[in-house]
Parts: sequence; structure tokens; C-alpha cells
Amino acid sequence: MSTQIKLAVIPGDGIGPEVVAEAVKVLGAATAVDDVTFDLTWFSLGAARFLETGDVLTDDDLASIAAHDAILLGAVGGVPGDPRLANASIERGLLLKLRFSLDHYVNLRPSVLFPGVPSPLAAPGNVDFVVVREGTEGPYVGNGGAIRQGTAHEVANEVSVNTAFGVERVVRHAFSVAQARPGRHLTLVHKTNVLVFAGSLWQRIVTAVASEFPEVSVDYLHVDAATIFLVTNPSRFDVIVTDNLFGDILTDLAAAISGGIGLAASGNINPDGRFPSMFEPVHGSAPDIAGKQLADPTAAILSVALLLSHLGLTDAAARVTAAVTADIAARRGDGAATAPRSTTDVGNAIVTRLTDK
Amino acid sequence: MSTQIKLAVIPGDGIGPEVVAEAVKVLGAATAVDDVTFDLTWFSLGAARFLETGDVLTDDDLASIAAHDAILLGAVGGVPGDPRLANASIERGLLLKLRFSLDHYVNLRPSVLFPGVPSPLAAPGNVDFVVVREGTEGPYVGNGGAIRQGTAHEVANEVSVNTAFGVERVVRHAFSVAQARPGRHLTLVHKTNVLVFAGSLWQRIVTAVASEFPEVSVDYLHVDAATIFLVTNPSRFDVIVTDNLFGDILTDLAAAISGGIGLAASGNINPDGRFPSMFEPVHGSAPDIAGKQLADPTAAILSVALLLSHLGLTDAAARVTAAVTADIAARRGDGAATAPRSTTDVGNAIVTRLTDK
Ligand SMILES: CC(C)[C@H](C(=O)O)[C@@H](O)C(=O)O
Ligand SMILES: CC(C)[C@H](C(=O)O)[C@@H](O)C(=O)O
Repeated sequence: MSTQIKLAVIPGDGIGPEVVAEAVKVLGAATAVDDVTFDLTWFSLGAARFLETGDVLTDDDLASIAAHDAILLGAVGGVPGDPRLANASIERGLLLKLRFSLDHYVNLRPSVLFPGVPSPLAAPGNVDFVVVREGTEGPYVGNGGAIRQGTAHEVANEVSVNTAFGVERVVRHAFSVAQARPGRHLTLVHKTNVLVFAGSLWQRIVTAVASEFPEVSVDYLHVDAATIFLVTNPSRFDVIVTDNLFGDILTDLAAAISGGIGLAASGNINPDGRFPSMFEPVHGSAPDIAGKQLADPTAAILSVALLLSHLGLTDAAARVTAAVTADIAARRGDGAATAPRSTTDVGNAIVTRLTDK
Repeated sequence: MSTQIKLAVIPGDGIGPEVVAEAVKVLGAATAVDDVTFDLTWFSLGAARFLETGDVLTDDDLASIAAHDAILLGAVGGVPGDPRLANASIERGLLLKLRFSLDHYVNLRPSVLFPGVPSPLAAPGNVDFVVVREGTEGPYVGNGGAIRQGTAHEVANEVSVNTAFGVERVVRHAFSVAQARPGRHLTLVHKTNVLVFAGSLWQRIVTAVASEFPEVSVDYLHVDAATIFLVTNPSRFDVIVTDNLFGDILTDLAAAISGGIGLAASGNINPDGRFPSMFEPVHGSAPDIAGKQLADPTAAILSVALLLSHLGLTDAAARVTAAVTADIAARRGDGAATAPRSTTDVGNAIVTRLTDK
């Protein structure tokens, strides 16, 4: 008897459908030997659907997605500056709506500089860390407002909301991630010298939870200093835990130093299992190169590895990571200039590595 | 008849006094040929003074500083983690208090990769941009609070306050900085897709003020994307305008890619001239190396160049920058390993360049 896994697939906009097509092929190839089958439901969501129907994410969409075991998302968002998409309706109404509604309080973003991948850093060293970004609080809660909008007396406020409940659960998760890694080191990143109330809450909770994980060493960096270390000494990091906005900033920088967002995978995780977790490349929909087979599907494929690992299919996850690692090494291996491969070429090459054994 | 300039000098803590000593020598040497004399008042402020007297910045201190034409600050802050300095009392009670009380709404932070300076980037290209960071609003206003502190039900909020008045004046200043540079390009950095109220205000004001500066081209980047470009293509930037917190983060990263915070100067400017502007290196007090003549005074000396330029002494400012550029080139010029120079050695070398002609 084989396990059935209900997977919601949201290809999205721009390059989303192209990279998701490869990710889905890899998912099948990686699990062919396992006693598991994936039941895919495809959801047509994103800027294109909104422009066509006026709907971003209906209650029915959400309920239907929530009834799945996991979600694979490509990328959502239209052409930057499109006036019909003002107010970030897709980012907020779809992507953030999913993260908040499905209680994705752990946004897991590993940064690994794979052998053979060029870094913009002259001497990157061994880049292998993971950012545990809080996903349901902080300045992302949407508690902003304005008065006298459009006048010389406008005041526009944004509120960062941080709760002991919300901070503690993500901090505890980050400690457990650190505990499972050889480095066993956790760095809290915040700006405690300016955001004193939120910073104090994060500090106190890290200190309290640390006592449950005596093997994990802990340090603290201000967010500004953390960006310096990310470019001067990234190998000092093992696990970073930080708030939603700092995590957003640090993970783009982390992706850049480890070979670019074409390789950066992420998981929006609900560790409780009450809601399906969602896996997506960190990159956006890149409408300028959409439909041209120019996008690198590696980030989407590595997101499949995170998905498999989250579902407990750790062998399959390891196979995907190994196949990607081998593909990247072959791609750039001897430094020789090779012809650029299409999105499908990359997917096929990785599928071949998974099936040829 | 010579102009008298009243300069408040705050050496501060740690390496502050060492680097300020060199900066003051350079100030004298650079203006020896000008019809100007500097009247220095030394203020003993910082962590050391607080620990001794219990005072961070009294009303009398503030009034006395405000009666000067400009301020030169070394660095303030005690040993990290010192429990007697909890709650960031020095950063908030002294540094931020000065910036807010003296209405330093422009925090000017140039990033230049001087010839001969190694960058952590493999191919930095031509790094020469300036960040105009807002200095009196945003998440720095201190409008945070918490309820049920210390319990499992704690809620800790931080409020970012943004006003049309505050945003418009710094945006207009940034445009005028861009207009005066050959590149004539301004990049707004924000997070408009999440912080929609504050982001909308910044966007609308940049669009409105742009019409007064038809020669300046304008673009926009989300703060996360901006960090990517800072490591992959920093030469795309000319002038960046951004809020207080994003500016804090971006300028540390900018300093890192252009040779480190040992070279990064800054001005906290009140362009109205109602209050004295304050010039300071971006680096902190680095108590671990204090008193050992190990600190590089270049950032403090370049802050003197910003100070001179702000006072309209543009020739003297140019002389300081030229002397520093020559010193840096000589220091690392031929790539030969030279013995490290003391803080005073560096100051003296720059003074010699200024007087030997
Ligand atoms: C699209 C945007 C809302 C999103 C975020 O800010 O979280 C993105 O930048 C990310 O990091 O996934
Ligand atoms: C010390 C701290 C309050 C300060 C800031 O956050 O502005 C510093 O990081 C800076 O950039 O000058």
C-alpha cells in the first residue's frame, strides 16, 4: 500500500510555470522508488488570473489549498509598475495571505555555496547556513495606516507586532534546527539598540529557550553588522533566527553571496502540521524573461528537496540535493565555457541523474 | 579678518579619542592656509562618563553643544553586554538624542572604493555612490511599547512614523545631491509591497519632487533587492534615498563592500542650519582595540572632509580627500606587505601630505 500525498501546485506568473514544470518532473523522478504517490491539484493563481477574473485568492481557493498535504509555488506577481496591480495586491493578497492564513511561522531559507558556483565574493569560504525567518508577525502584519493622505500633513505609520507566543515558537524551532546541524550555533539578528521593545522580547526569549538546548552556542548581531559579516565572513554563520523583515533582507543578501536567487530555495513551514507547508524559490516571477526557457529551475527543484524533507521523505530529498549538486558541478566544473542550457535542459539533466542508477 | 568656527568635539569612548585626535590634527593642517580658525570645545560624553556620573546627556550639555557651528564625534558606546549599559542607553540617550534634538534629518553616507583598497567583492567595479538616509523618523522614533512584559502573553510593538513633511525634506535634499553629481541618478529604496502606507508616502513624494529635477533619473528598488545589487553590481548606484532603518542596514553593507567601516564617513546634517550638523565615522567605539593605536583614523578624517564641505570650505575638504586618497594608494599601492601603521602614523602621514606643498 502506497502513501498518497495531496500536493497543491501554484505555478503562478512569469517564469513560475516553467520552473514548476521542471520541479514537478524532478519530484516524480526522485520518488519513483518510494512507496508514495503525489496527487497534484493545479491552481491557477497570480497576477494573470487576477487581471482576467478580478480574484486574487477566494475563500474557496484558500479552503481547497488548505485541504492538501503540501504546496509547491513557482512565483507570483505581474510586470513591475503595472497600475492595475497597484498596492501590491498580488504579493499581499496572495503570497502573504497564504503565509499568514496557513500559519507559516517558520520561513526556512538555506544558503549553500555549491561547489563550482561562482560567488560575487572574492573569498567566500565555506558558505553553509540557514536563516529561520519568522513568517507571521513583525512589520508584515499589515497594521499600518495613514491620516491626511495626499496632503502636506500626511502621517503614515507601520506597526511591527511581536508576541511572546509568536517569537517563542520560531525561536524554539530555530534551536532545534541548530541542534540537528554539526555547527550547533545560533545567531539572533535584530536591532535591539533601536527597536528596544521588540528587541528585548526576542533577546529574552532566545536566552530562555537556550537553556533547553545546552549544546547550542548562541550569539547576537545587530542587523546592520550582520550584513557586514555576510560579505566579509559568511562562514561564521550556522543558523540565523530573525524577524520577518530582517529575514527578508538578509536572505536576499545571503542568496546573492551564494550564487544568486536562481539557486535559493525556501520553505514556508507550519511545523505543527495543522496547515500545509508551502515551498517556493526565493526568486520572483521575472516577467521580462518569461516563456523564453531562460530561467534556471534549480531554486524550484531545491524547493522540492525541502518539501520532500518536510514530508519525511529524507532519502528522496537527499537524492534531489545530490543530483542538483552534481549537475551544478558538471555545469561549471572545469571552468570551460559551455552553451547556456534551457530551463527544460536543466530539469532533464537532473531527472537523468535521478533515474540513471 | 578671519572667520571663527565654533566646533564641539565629542571624542567619546573606546577608539573615539584616538581617531578624533588625528581628525583634529588634520582639520588644523587642512585649513592652515584658509582665513578661518576653529574654536574647539571638548565634551566628555559617552559610556565612560555615564558610568562615572550617571549622566548621559544633560539639558545643559545639549544646549551648550547646540550653540556651536558644527560637531565632530568619535564614537560612543561601552563594552557590548555590559549590564550597566542595558537598554542601549548610550546609543539612544546620546547618539540618537543628538540626531533627533538637532534635527539631523539628512544622514549622508558616501561610499567610495578608493584606488588600492581591497573589497570583499571579486569584481566591485566603480563604487562611488552616496546614501541619503532619513534621520529623524521611521522606526527610530522610539514609539514602541509592550504589554504583559515578561509573560507568555507579552505583545511588543514598534511603530514606524513617516510624515509628508519629514519625507519631503529629505527627498528634496537627495535630489539636490543627485543633481550636483555627474550621474544624476536617484534610487528610492523601500519595501512598498509590504509597508504599503509608509511606502506609498515615499513613492508619491519621490514622484512629486522628481518634477522639480527633470535632469535626475529615478528608479525604485525593494530593500531586499537593493542588497543583491550592492554585492553584484554596486556601480549601478549613484544616490540612494531611503528611510532611517533601511539606511542603517544599507550603509553598513555599503561600507563593507567599499573597504570596511574603517573608511566610512558620515554626516548627520541639518540642512536648514538651525542646528549644528554632526560628523562621525560610521564605525563604533571598538572597546576591544581601544588605546592600542590599532584603529584606522581614516573614517574620522574623511568625516572632517564632510564637515569642511558642509561649512562651505570646499577647497579644504578637497585637500583632505586628496591627501587621504594618496595615503591609501601609497599604503597598499604596490601590493607589497608593509608594516601596519599606528593610528597616529596614519594621521601624521595625512598631515604631512597636507603641509608639504
Ligand atoms: C514578495 C514579497 C512580499 C516577499 C517578502 O517580502 O516576503 C519576498 O520578498 C520574499 O522574500 O519572499
Ligand atoms: C548605534 C546605532 C544606534 C546607530 C544607528 O542605528 O543609527 C549606528 O548603527 C549607525 O548607523 O550610526
